[in-house]
Amino acid sequence: MDVLNDEYYMRLALTMAAKASGQTGINPVVGCVVVKEGRILGIGTHLKRGTGHAEVHALQMAGGEAEGATVYVTLEPCSHFGKTPPCCERIIDAKAARVVVASGDPNPQVAGRGISRLREAGIEVTVGLLEAESQLMNEKFNKYITSKLPFVTLKTASTLDGKIASKTGDSRWVTGAVAREQVHTLRHQHEAIMVGIGTVLADDPSLTTRASVPAIHPTRIIVDSELRLPPGAKVVTDRTVRTIVLTTERADADKRQTLTDAGVEIVISGNGGKVDLREAMKKLGALEIGSILLEGGGALNGAMLEAGLIDKIILYYAAKIIGGAAAPGTFTFEGFEKMADAIELERVSVEMAGEDICVSGYPVYTSSLG
Amino acid sequence: MDVLNDEYYMRLALTMAAKASGQTGINPVVGCVVVKEGRILGIGTHLKRGTGHAEVHALQMAGGEAEGATVYVTLEPCSHFGKTPPCCERIIDAKAARVVVASGDPNPQVAGRGISRLREAGIEVTVGLLEAESQLMNEKFNKYITSKLPFVTLKTASTLDGKIASKTGDSRWVTGAVAREQVHTLRHQHEAIMVGIGTVLADDPSLTTRASVPAIHPTRIIVDSELRLPPGAKVVTDRTVRTIVLTTERADADKRQTLTDAGVEIVISGNGGKVDLREAMKKLGALEIGSILLEGGGALNGAMLEAGLIDKIILYYAAKIIGGAAAPGTFTFEGFEKMADAIELERVSVEMAGEDICVSGYPVYTSSLG
Repeated sequence: MDVLNDEYYMRLALTMAAKASGQTGINPVVGCVVVKEGRILGIGTHLKRGTGHAEVHALQMAGGEAEGATVYVTLEPCSHFGKTPPCCERIIDAKAARVVVASGDPNPQVAGRGISRLREAGIEVTVGLLEAESQLMNEKFNKYITSKLPFVTLKTASTLDGKIASKTGDSRWVTGAVAREQVHTLRHQHEAIMVGIGTVLADDPSLTTRASVPAIHPTRIIVDSELRLPPGAKVVTDRTVRTIVLTTERADADKRQTLTDAGVEIVISGNGGKVDLREAMKKLGALEIGSILLEGGGALNGAMLEAGLIDKIILYYAAKIIGGAAAPGTFTFEGFEKMADAIELERVSVEMAGEDICVSGYPVYTSSLG
Repeated sequence: MDVLNDEYYMRLALTMAAKASGQTGINPVVGCVVVKEGRILGIGTHLKRGTGHAEVHALQMAGGEAEGATVYVTLEPCSHFGKTPPCCERIIDAKAARVVVASGDPNPQVAGRGISRLREAGIEVTVGLLEAESQLMNEKFNKYITSKLPFVTLKTASTLDGKIASKTGDSRWVTGAVAREQVHTLRHQHEAIMVGIGTVLADDPSLTTRASVPAIHPTRIIVDSELRLPPGAKVVTDRTVRTIVLTTERADADKRQTLTDAGVEIVISGNGGKVDLREAMKKLGALEIGSILLEGGGALNGAMLEAGLIDKIILYYAAKIIGGAAAPGTFTFEGFEKMADAIELERVSVEMAGEDICVSGYPVYTSSLG
């Protein structure tokens, strides 16, 4: 049963914000509810980078009635001129009486200044209501805004014995319809999707988002040290969204030109035999790629994990066992000698996804790595 | 909140019975509650094969007051003379007015006759209350009584990438304290524990049950085609419980004699290079081993799965990733060529076990196997 209190309104603001996940680019998702005398007067959500913030939408809906109202907002209102004017001034102008904030803004340009500004203007400010939920909802933004590196979510789908395909390479299908629908939702919620060239050569995937309703397609990133990507691959010919190929200085100039001519963006990372993944993440961050869904194969998963570049791991397990020592696994890397050195996940959660099992958590990198 | 009704008492009977799991040998666990006019007059549980059944204990506690009472019993009362006199006659003699039964007895010697006998005597009988819970509680008994084959539960503990040890063989520890305590409880609840000779040679385990309170140690079964078991191994020198070695007709006669002299029981299954596991299960069933906890290694797990001899699978996953293509997996077998041919699990459940994840289910064998 619902209880009418501050949390009642903040949960609405959080729900509205979360649903916009994937459409705000490197901006956070934010929700806002304006309330006075037991009535909701305005609701708003930040919808797209460069357009109105949540508070602006909600205050506009409330109009003149906002005077004396309480403004519930999931993230600290901004106090600086960015692509839009500061929300603090908008709240002050509206003569709101009270502002309830879920979490402070990790953006160094805001970082408490919004709250101070409101208090200076005589507005009562409460901070920290449902803070953990708000921070979790913006975990991708929080990493990017503080590090300028993309938040990387790894998703795998394997059998219970950790195989992503049979020994002959057959992988249709590992998981069921519910898990696959969830994966397409993850694609919608990330700015880019990244796979290794092996996956492209084996499956020729389109790497688009397929849902029962129109969805956002992420930028495609292919890790391809030797530029083996054929110009006829779907990720090249399908121009729905941009395709970025990560390669090295050693890559063949003619091949670079062919792919560039086909509309592919080439990003050079390192001059070794393999793409320097750490350098690549910096360059992708500079290109304002704030979040990446990593979808394998096993070799890229392993390399990204060894480099300490994966922030979150989502593992789907189909409830079946396929066997075969040569069948490929979820992570292909050298591996640790001691069980005690294995990379642990924290904040682990587990749930059923239709007939499959979904385990998620956050890898903890020790000093020997990352 | 509890609701006072038939289920209220049957749940007590089920709980009492379940706690005795592991101490009734090939007999089922059964609970009984005798109730009259809102008061519990007697409670009973079958505690040990060859001793009083649940109804007998509960009616004895109730004494003369049982006349006109309701008897709640988790399994259909027996109507035949086994090691003890039939419970039906005991209930009729006690002049109970009503009997509520959770599930009918799959034992072909009982199979509905108990219920008929009670009804013939004018007692009102209700059958099927919490039937699924009762059947699940006695899944081991149900298989054994109908097939004379042991119910085999496989338990594994691996990393999220399906490795039971590192590439160097290090496996201390995969899972945490809570999962390990649960595994020792599983040992307590099975009549035998089975491992491959590789596990014995690698770890020299005692294979006893270690709990924070005294526990029952299962019979130890070692699958050892070539009788490599050293007479100095703990499973031989520790005479706490019996040790059975499964081998083949080809096994060296001197080695057989040495182990027999050391107190080990040798069971011959097949005359090939490997133990005939199907034949072995029949022989173990004939020895009144009604349930087996299979604890690896990967080769034995794989062989038992391929032979369709595993009834239930319990997979513990530590929330960590160790990598290493050569690191041993939970199942070592040839494997299937097609993902669609993988062995599926049904009735899958998943829960946290401390910091680890516990997945359990029941393998479904298609006609190509088993």
